[in-house]
Order: sequence, then C-alpha cells, then structure tokens
Amino acid sequence: MSDLSGGIQASGGGILEKKKAGVLYGVGLGPGDPELMTLKAARLIGGAAFVAYPALVGGASLARSIAADLIPKSAAEIVVKVPMTVERGPAQMAYNKGAALIAAALQAGEDVVYLCEGDPFFYGSFMYLFARLEVEFQVEVVPGVTSVAACAARSGRPLVARNERLTVLPGPLDEDELRSRIEGAESVAIMKVGRHLGKIRHVIEGLGLVEQAVYVERASLPEELICPLADAPETAPYFSMILLIKGADPWL
Amino acid sequence: MSDLSGGIQASGGGILEKKKAGVLYGVGLGPGDPELMTLKAARLIGGAAFVAYPALVGGASLARSIAADLIPKSAAEIVVKVPMTVERGPAQMAYNKGAALIAAALQAGEDVVYLCEGDPFFYGSFMYLFARLEVEFQVEVVPGVTSVAACAARSGRPLVARNERLTVLPGPLDEDELRSRIEGAESVAIMKVGRHLGKIRHVIEGLGLVEQAVYVERASLPEELICPLADAPETAPYFSMILLIKGADPWL
Repeated sequence: MSDLSGGIQASGGGILEKKKAGVLYGVGLGPGDPELMTLKAARLIGGAAFVAYPALVGGASLARSIAADLIPKSAAEIVVKVPMTVERGPAQMAYNKGAALIAAALQAGEDVVYLCEGDPFFYGSFMYLFARLEVEFQVEVVPGVTSVAACAARSGRPLVARNERLTVLPGPLDEDELRSRIEGAESVAIMKVGRHLGKIRHVIEGLGLVEQAVYVERASLPEELICPLADAPETAPYFSMILLIKGADPWL
Repeated sequence: MSDLSGGIQASGGGILEKKKAGVLYGVGLGPGDPELMTLKAARLIGGAAFVAYPALVGGASLARSIAADLIPKSAAEIVVKVPMTVERGPAQMAYNKGAALIAAALQAGEDVVYLCEGDPFFYGSFMYLFARLEVEFQVEVVPGVTSVAACAARSGRPLVARNERLTVLPGPLDEDELRSRIEGAESVAIMKVGRHLGKIRHVIEGLGLVEQAVYVERASLPEELICPLADAPETAPYFSMILLIKGADPWL
C-alpha cells in the first residue's frame, strides 16, 4: 500500500499536503449477489460521501447495481464511462478523465470509494485507476470474491486440493495457447468466454475433456445458468466462464 | 448444487425423508480479517444452531478464530480434528468421523454451518466433507475471498488484466515443474510456501525474476508481513505466499 502519510508532518504546500488528502478505496463487490460482498465493503460503501464506478458508454453499471442498496442517497457519484473498443486509446482517455475527477476529490480531503465487480486486482478496471493514482495518493484495496470462486461454488465443483495447479485463462487466447495451458494444469478456469465459446469448445473437445467441463453464466445472479459444456448455448455473454476440472486426485 | 428436495413429497421412510434433512453450508471466511467475510457468511454463522470447523490435532482452529465473534453462544460445535501427517489415511479417517457427526445433525433436520478459511473450494478441507456428504444431503457453498486476492490487495500488486494468464502453484511441486509453470504465465501465485521457500527462491532467482516477486505472510491478519522476496525471512510459515507478477502489459 502506498501510505504517504506515515511520519510526514503537514505543512504549507507541495508533497507534504498529502497528509490531508483523502484515501482511495478500491472495493471488490464479489460476483453479483449483493450478499457476497464483504462486511468491509458494505461498511465503506454505507459510509461513503464520494462513490465512483465504471459504466459502459451508453450502458448501465453492473458495479453500481450490485451496491445500489448500500450507497447513501447523499453520496456524490463519479461515473467512469468506458468505451468498448479494441484499441486501447479511448479507454485510456476515459481512465485519465476518471482519475482526474477522483484526484480532485482526494485532494479536497475526501475519501473516495471505487466500486469494482469481483475483485479489484483480478481482471478489474480498478487497476487502471490504481496505476494513475497510487503514486500520489494513499490507496487501500479491499479484496472481493472472484467469479472463479463463485462459479466453482455454484456448480458444486471443488477447484483445487493438495498439490494441484490452477490456471486462469482469458478466452481470447488463441487455440494453441489454450491447448497447451489446459494440458499443463489439473484445473482450469476460462474467463470472458463470450464470442470465443466455439473456439474454446473445439479445443476442449480435441483434448477429450468435454465431460469434465462445466459452463457457467452470470454466477450468483438471478439469471444464472449452469450446465455441462456439452449442453452450453451457442452464444455466450461476456460474463460467462468454463470450469474444467480434471479431478485426477480424488477428494476422498 | 445437490438439491434433493425439489419436487419430492415427504413420506414415511427411505430416500423420501431427505426433504426434511438439514442443509450443509460450506462457508468461506476469507483470508483472516473477520471483516473480509461476506455478508452471507456472517448471516449464516450468526443464525447457526450447529457450527462445524477443522482444527489441527492438539492445536487451535484458525477458522473458528476468524468467526469467533459471530458464533452464537448457544450453538453446538463439531470439531473435525485433522492430523498433520504426510500419509493420507489418518486425515481420511478424521474426515470420515467428522462427516458422520455432521450427517447425524443433518439427518435430525438441523442445518450445519461449516467454517472454512479462505474459499471452501480453493485448497480447502471442506471439499473432503463435500465429497462425503453431497450425494445424500443438500449442500450450499458460500464462496469466500481467497488468500491470493488478499495478498495482491495488501501488497498493492494488480494480479492480471486483459489477456494475461494467472497460474496458482503449490510450493511442494518440484523445481522443474515450478520453473516451467512460472515461465508459462504472466502472473503466478505460489501457495503453501512454508519449508519450500529456499527451493522456490532458487527457481525464481534462476529465472531472473526476483525483483518481480513479493513475499506475503498471513495477509490481512495483525501479524501480516509483506516484503520483496529478496528480503524474505529464512523460514516461512505454512500460511505464506509468493506473488510473481511479470507486468509485461502495463496497466496504464
């Protein structure tokens, strides 16, 4: 953690003013069910004067919807509007703008609670704000339940025991990469399945592992769907996952 | 989840009695700070009539200590005493005994809340009870914050973004295995470091990655220790981890 206040006395200006700046909290909300957020997340959100969160341009914010019942009505809200483009420039601009707004609140001495789906440091957009703000401000990250843990729990599939290896792979990787990484682990979680479902299914079929694979969509949310990979729908949303558990080492 | 009650009418005996059996909840408590448990875990523990948890033979139970303030004084407690042996027979016997006690409570119609450090399905002992009880009883797993997420949060090291791969490795793996798996991922979490610290350090040094590695002991607990791997102590406890984050893809 970048605790800049330790031992520094406040004085007139420059870097020493940081002692009075607010703290940025990057708060993991878990996979979607509001009851799967931590007690600490609930406490920080419920007491927040400034709340920030990402939203897709033109869309709603999943993060805000998870925390909605806890956000104080009086809280100021900073929306980081993220464009869905393959190029990174537009998203980088969005995070620059969001970081500037958050920095202004922190500099005014206000704490800011940034809402993150899942865990802030596990494929979360918070890390882009962290990279922009942690040098200058005190940042505390509150870890959350990941979608991997939620998918395993909801599908009743223990992930790893004893000396087993777990590999987490993003669906956009190419076939050869997916194949070799799946071969090298006892348990695999493939994230961000979406439009890559056909390719991933092809790789798993080629390895003869279809019967060990389960498809999970929107784990812990009311629209949750869990089924064997063989029965998965033709099209998958972005928030979908395939768990592949070889189970070489029985849990008995 | 093995919901055996759906659509079955209660009647005189045999399998149909399951409708009246209790539910076994496998509840993740997170990494150690009681505030990092989920709202759902806190609700289930606070309302429990029967609580069960693992403890080392002759030792205290870390799981119980995390939940201690929430366990109702009137709750019955089932302690699963796990021997620390390399052979699996003695531990298997312990889980058989624990499962029998839990089954008796479930059969009597009582729900049982089983306390799990971290996440129940992520290197957790709960999966041994799950394997013994899920065929006959309804089991619900409540996911928890893993030690991996906690270590990343506490050390201020984002784990994975975009198309990066994360691999989780147990420290007892041999050198060649550790080396090839570390080479094949952008981010690596090495669990259960303990007495394997020297071997793991040697592998990471050989790969020229010491400067990207951080050592974390008892993340989120008062005795927490976080330092660069180069400064790690000579001896590590079982609950220690090394995070190795190559950071090939910058977060800006």
